[in-house]
Amino acid sequence: YYWALFDGHGGPEAAIIASNYLHYCIKQKLEEVVGGITEAHPPMHLSGRCVCDSDPQFVEEKQIQAEDLVVGALENAFQECDEVMGQEMEATNQTGGCTALAAVYFEGKMYVANAGDSRAILVLKDEVVPMSCEFTPETERQRLQHLAFLFPKLLDGEFTRFEFPRRLKGDDVGQKVLYRDYFMEGWGYKTVEKADLKYPLVHGQGKQARLLGTLAVSRGLGDHQLKVIDTNIEVKPFLSCIPKVNVFDLALHDIKEDDVLIMATDGLWDVLCNKEVAHMVRSFLAENRTDPDRFSELAKCLVCRARGKKRGHQWLLDESHEASYDDISVFVIPLF
Amino acid sequence: YYWALFDGHGGPEAAIIASNYLHYCIKQKLEEVVGGITEAHPPMHLSGRCVCDSDPQFVEEKQIQAEDLVVGALENAFQECDEVMGQEMEATNQTGGCTALAAVYFEGKMYVANAGDSRAILVLKDEVVPMSCEFTPETERQRLQHLAFLFPKLLDGEFTRFEFPRRLKGDDVGQKVLYRDYFMEGWGYKTVEKADLKYPLVHGQGKQARLLGTLAVSRGLGDHQLKVIDTNIEVKPFLSCIPKVNVFDLALHDIKEDDVLIMATDGLWDVLCNKEVAHMVRSFLAENRTDPDRFSELAKCLVCRARGKKRGHQWLLDESHEASYDDISVFVIPLF
Repeated sequence: YYWALFDGHGGPEAAIIASNYLHYCIKQKLEEVVGGITEAHPPMHLSGRCVCDSDPQFVEEKQIQAEDLVVGALENAFQECDEVMGQEMEATNQTGGCTALAAVYFEGKMYVANAGDSRAILVLKDEVVPMSCEFTPETERQRLQHLAFLFPKLLDGEFTRFEFPRRLKGDDVGQKVLYRDYFMEGWGYKTVEKADLKYPLVHGQGKQARLLGTLAVSRGLGDHQLKVIDTNIEVKPFLSCIPKVNVFDLALHDIKEDDVLIMATDGLWDVLCNKEVAHMVRSFLAENRTDPDRFSELAKCLVCRARGKKRGHQWLLDESHEASYDDISVFVIPLF
Repeated sequence: YYWALFDGHGGPEAAIIASNYLHYCIKQKLEEVVGGITEAHPPMHLSGRCVCDSDPQFVEEKQIQAEDLVVGALENAFQECDEVMGQEMEATNQTGGCTALAAVYFEGKMYVANAGDSRAILVLKDEVVPMSCEFTPETERQRLQHLAFLFPKLLDGEFTRFEFPRRLKGDDVGQKVLYRDYFMEGWGYKTVEKADLKYPLVHGQGKQARLLGTLAVSRGLGDHQLKVIDTNIEVKPFLSCIPKVNVFDLALHDIKEDDVLIMATDGLWDVLCNKEVAHMVRSFLAENRTDPDRFSELAKCLVCRARGKKRGHQWLLDESHEASYDDISVFVIPLF
């Protein structure tokens, strides 16, 4: 079983190509290692042959499980898919990129691989289990700044890698202001120089945060040709196509009829938190137990809730909160 | 209040110099920002002057707290200390390096900064709180492999950045064996080439794990001159002197008379887990409540326990476990 969600930017092309290729890449990478997944501990050699008598011991010491081969296959599949997309999009002169959130059910376990700002959660009877975390210029600030520190040329003298609470201006020069460099989780004070007035590598807050003033995500597929507007600066070196994979062993849990995996793009999570979504999921499914289409109905219901209601020129979630202005895609996947 | 533990390697010089400098660097970095710690939210400008009317709002939006300035000061202090050590050790022709674990009590909070494989835990009445995590070639494998991927010259053709369950040999060439690259948490299979027979960047298991076959830690101070034996390969580019800082707010907890911070080198933690240490701490302090020296007695008792007893040629922890062969240093710091 396989489900995947792609949120495009700079046009829909990358998302369309990714949705055509990723499952193929995953299938291929899984097939490449399937011979190794037969036992609890995969063999050191895919052929099963032992070159060294103690090979099984080495594998056991490293605690390598069949599960790790699936994780590795997903990691490799995302990279392969990104490469293929780069070639195809260059050849056909298409541009743009997309996030990718993929769920694979394999031998009793749910694997969720995420590169971007979509999110997957498991809503179980007594528990909500996050199955992904978001990769944005804010959550990956230190990785991005570190890369700019290692390869200053990537910024071409147009950006500063430092983070400041706001964009600096001429009046700040000579003053000591709050800043963070790549190695800092805390903050310090730095005497502002003229170079610090450049646009910051990571800038903005929350939904407004941007990488190189250009992208709202720091991981995804595509964007091979993307340059910062009016410059020669490439964005791709800062983007990562590597997913973080989370595994959930269904056999270790008593899965109930209404337990589901929710996968949705940032459009949903911008306005609804995990708890609110879980509450809606549980009450909707409890009230519609006999409806054979209740899972797809629930997905529609979640989209409509986040889309909000039109009041004058605004779309509102309720009296005091704005609804999502972004596109919203939701999957509801029953686990039972 | 300040406590710090340094575990030297390649001679005691680095640990001695670090113990002479680090507290001075921390003091200096804290003094540099002390003007900013006066309020709940530090001012955007250290001078307190507002260049932009909404500066306090920017700082609040970023959720920058006084605490973050202390964390930033500790991060900067470790880097400063490492720089000073590099200059001094080169000038005086000294070599070696050390790990550093520093605890600073400041305005009701305990800050623990760690670079290396020492460990600090809080043993409270009903709870054990880990205050650090270890940085070793194993725990930092992905960072180290990524650096080798970005700058292959650092390995000078002598090492491979790939990880394998064991050192490969000629018979493995052409076979598909388990491996991991920098972007993988999972494992995959790779067809072995001749270049894969080189010594791995990160090799060995547990206490035997080594970076470039040389060092058992991946963070620390010093080692500026260290080269892989019989080569021109420098180890320093792979070492990080940046600490991870953990903060514990004592005001949010009901601190009891017997609550302590335990800081110890890897010699202790190799043979005793957090739970065993916590058990010994609690029972020892409960039994020796009137002894004014009970905290230093407890530290001695922990060292003796990990050192074990001599039986024939071996030092034993108990009938079936070997004791620590490493050096052991322990601090017991009362919090009450």
